[in-house]
Amino acid sequence: EGICNGIDVAMTEETLFVDGHRLQQQIDQLSSFSDTPPPSVTRILFTGNDVAARRYVKGAMKEVGLLVREDAIGNIFGRWEGSIPRIPGVASGSHTDAIPYAGKYDGVVGVLGAIAAVRALKRIGFQPKRSIEVIMFTSEEPTRFGFGCLGSRMMANSTNIVEILKESFDAENVSFAEAAKEAGYLDVADELETVALDVGRYSAFVELHIEQGPILEKKGIPIGIVTAIAAPASLKVGFKGDGGHAGAVLMPVRNDAGLAGAELALSVEKNVLASGSTDTVGTTGVFKIHPGAVNSVPRESHLEIDIRDIDEKRRDKVVDEIKRSAHEIAGRRRVTLTNFEIVNQDPPAQSGDQVVGAAIEAAELLGLEYQTMVSRAYHDSLFMARIAPMGMIFIPCYKGYSHRPDEFASLEDMTKGVQVLSLTLKRLSSL
Amino acid sequence: EGICNGIDVAMTEETLFVDGHRLQQQIDQLSSFSDTPPPSVTRILFTGNDVAARRYVKGAMKEVGLLVREDAIGNIFGRWEGSIPRIPGVASGSHTDAIPYAGKYDGVVGVLGAIAAVRALKRIGFQPKRSIEVIMFTSEEPTRFGFGCLGSRMMANSTNIVEILKESFDAENVSFAEAAKEAGYLDVADELETVALDVGRYSAFVELHIEQGPILEKKGIPIGIVTAIAAPASLKVGFKGDGGHAGAVLMPVRNDAGLAGAELALSVEKNVLASGSTDTVGTTGVFKIHPGAVNSVPRESHLEIDIRDIDEKRRDKVVDEIKRSAHEIAGRRRVTLTNFEIVNQDPPAQSGDQVVGAAIEAAELLGLEYQTMVSRAYHDSLFMARIAPMGMIFIPCYKGYSHRPDEFASLEDMTKGVQVLSLTLKRLSSL
Ligand SMILES: [Mn+2]
Ligand SMILES: [Mn+2]
Ligand SMILES: [Mn+2]
Ligand SMILES: [Mn+2]
Repeated sequence: EGICNGIDVAMTEETLFVDGHRLQQQIDQLSSFSDTPPPSVTRILFTGNDVAARRYVKGAMKEVGLLVREDAIGNIFGRWEGSIPRIPGVASGSHTDAIPYAGKYDGVVGVLGAIAAVRALKRIGFQPKRSIEVIMFTSEEPTRFGFGCLGSRMMANSTNIVEILKESFDAENVSFAEAAKEAGYLDVADELETVALDVGRYSAFVELHIEQGPILEKKGIPIGIVTAIAAPASLKVGFKGDGGHAGAVLMPVRNDAGLAGAELALSVEKNVLASGSTDTVGTTGVFKIHPGAVNSVPRESHLEIDIRDIDEKRRDKVVDEIKRSAHEIAGRRRVTLTNFEIVNQDPPAQSGDQVVGAAIEAAELLGLEYQTMVSRAYHDSLFMARIAPMGMIFIPCYKGYSHRPDEFASLEDMTKGVQVLSLTLKRLSSL
Repeated sequence: EGICNGIDVAMTEETLFVDGHRLQQQIDQLSSFSDTPPPSVTRILFTGNDVAARRYVKGAMKEVGLLVREDAIGNIFGRWEGSIPRIPGVASGSHTDAIPYAGKYDGVVGVLGAIAAVRALKRIGFQPKRSIEVIMFTSEEPTRFGFGCLGSRMMANSTNIVEILKESFDAENVSFAEAAKEAGYLDVADELETVALDVGRYSAFVELHIEQGPILEKKGIPIGIVTAIAAPASLKVGFKGDGGHAGAVLMPVRNDAGLAGAELALSVEKNVLASGSTDTVGTTGVFKIHPGAVNSVPRESHLEIDIRDIDEKRRDKVVDEIKRSAHEIAGRRRVTLTNFEIVNQDPPAQSGDQVVGAAIEAAELLGLEYQTMVSRAYHDSLFMARIAPMGMIFIPCYKGYSHRPDEFASLEDMTKGVQVLSLTLKRLSSL
């Protein structure tokens, strides 16, 4: 099956040493920068803990000899110069931000793991032909301004993202520019256009990540190689009614915006199930009502909805059905549909054959069992696929849990993942 | 019909002058103590603005010659000594706290209006036989610690309220004792038992209030005289599921606590409508989900539900049905019902015949049209009814709106209300 083709014989699992304990220690240290107590991790864009995590990552990059730079949106790059510096390099990375009450592995394994891979490759005296760059992407999570994969989205020059961002506010009504300024990104608003990279800037991009699903763990397979990433869409919906006193406003004259929201959340579930495929998922992850007092009829509700599928058309049909539902509910309950915003509706991404091939070769060379699979969670890889051939390496995580304090990946599995990443980077940077 | 019996002929609408403009000015001034911008008013127990409002009310009481004292829970009393000080006095008052984004009339009209009534009675040279006390009750709204009518509830020596309060925390996990201390009520926890008053301490209690419903305005009637107050119950419900990543956790294995909450909110509506009476009302006024990120399946939901009826048994049946629903939803959706707490489930109150009679006499003497009615909102009067014959005087408010920034009562209607209150107090304090 062509194992070992183009892989130096000296680079087997015998000589490649990945320091798993050091990686675990760094993951634990990074998890201490959190707005909520351990074991939970909460690290939101441009907060004090996000800034602290950035400082930590830059330090870890420098420690392994990488040349560190940062772009206007705060994407951090650690460069290992190749022997032919002018040709496109190979990049690998992920994110370190974390949604409220999440865990310490999501994203972090792919950033600190890529640094560990560089360390392992340097230890065996490898000299890449193409430069290798480790990337920490800004705000993969959509928590603060509603956009997932902000850093990679901008790198991939996503339509209008810069304009939209300039007019974005967080839940506390802090503008993007103010938030960036507070984090020390002083002139960010003027330089956002400089973040976009040309197609072909990198010859390949590969991301190491926990699976965030139960398949690998259940089957006892240590490595997943991603062939496609499911297509995410996210919506913001608002309803508004008259509100009023919970005792005095009688039921027949009410137009309760909270109940309209409750119906829409249930309609999301119903429409997703109606797709008939278990690959379709839909979630109302944000549900807020105003004024939010026990004796007050809700006047306003605000929902944020996430719909994904590996089939773009099927997903878009669900989005259409939810929109129809929102209008129907508003009409029937005599509330106003104040907002139905499709925040993003991205196409799915296919992995690059060469990247998948290099990862398969690496796993086989290391004698590690692997399987190819689809990623139902989106990742920065989804956007990097627009400017470079992309691939992802998954490792198992406990019960498939993610975005939870008890998210967990074993030191052994992380070590195997970094080994595969190391040999994949070695291969891709030699091509 | 016995009009004018026992009412001094000199005290007609010709001689009784209520300074409506001064009342309006005081209401406007008080509304400036708010955590949210005008026209909304937000004034939560023991916050800086609540403390400022208390200072303002004490000042207004002193200005009209009342002797001011305050009990351990912060109920404020302004006393006009009667000619026979040792016999039970007559009390009148309401509250000045306001739920988030409420208006400036709810409660306030009954506190500043009672002060205006004292001013009007003093102006005509009236000397009460029984003392007249104006009361500002602490935390009529349940916003911070979940108990409505905290001050009057404690005055009426409600079962276990002191013990429960000592173990109560607000949404930011601040204990009641800490919150009180911050507001300057240093030893409140040790003295809470002293707030309770004996039955018979007052010979009568009467509260002036906006209707918080549309009836008086619609009919063009300036005065409502309350014969009974509907019975409120409030519930706190919590669901907990496994949560997880919105992309990776497939629908068949989810147990979404947010959707369980959405179903329960709709079930509240369904069960209330099933009572068959428009007098039954039910509201899910608080609905929070955790962690509250668009790409995270809700792990926890927290609902606060308010159920009222003028028929206690019918209301209790609705509460039972909601409880059954909560269990059924939890079972079907494989979430845990972590909490189903009946925070309070109070009996309705009947007005005292003598108080109703005095108010009717007052309205007739003033030539004002009135109607008797039921209060569907609860008030401090609900609890004062346990220790004294109670009555309420309602005035119209714009479209029946309350607990909204556009809550409004006209100067003319407020003036008429204070006139009726003045003559009612005059009558009751002379008996
Ligand atoms: Mn994530
Ligand atoms: Mn991630
Ligand atoms: Mn109120
Ligand atoms: Mn009130």
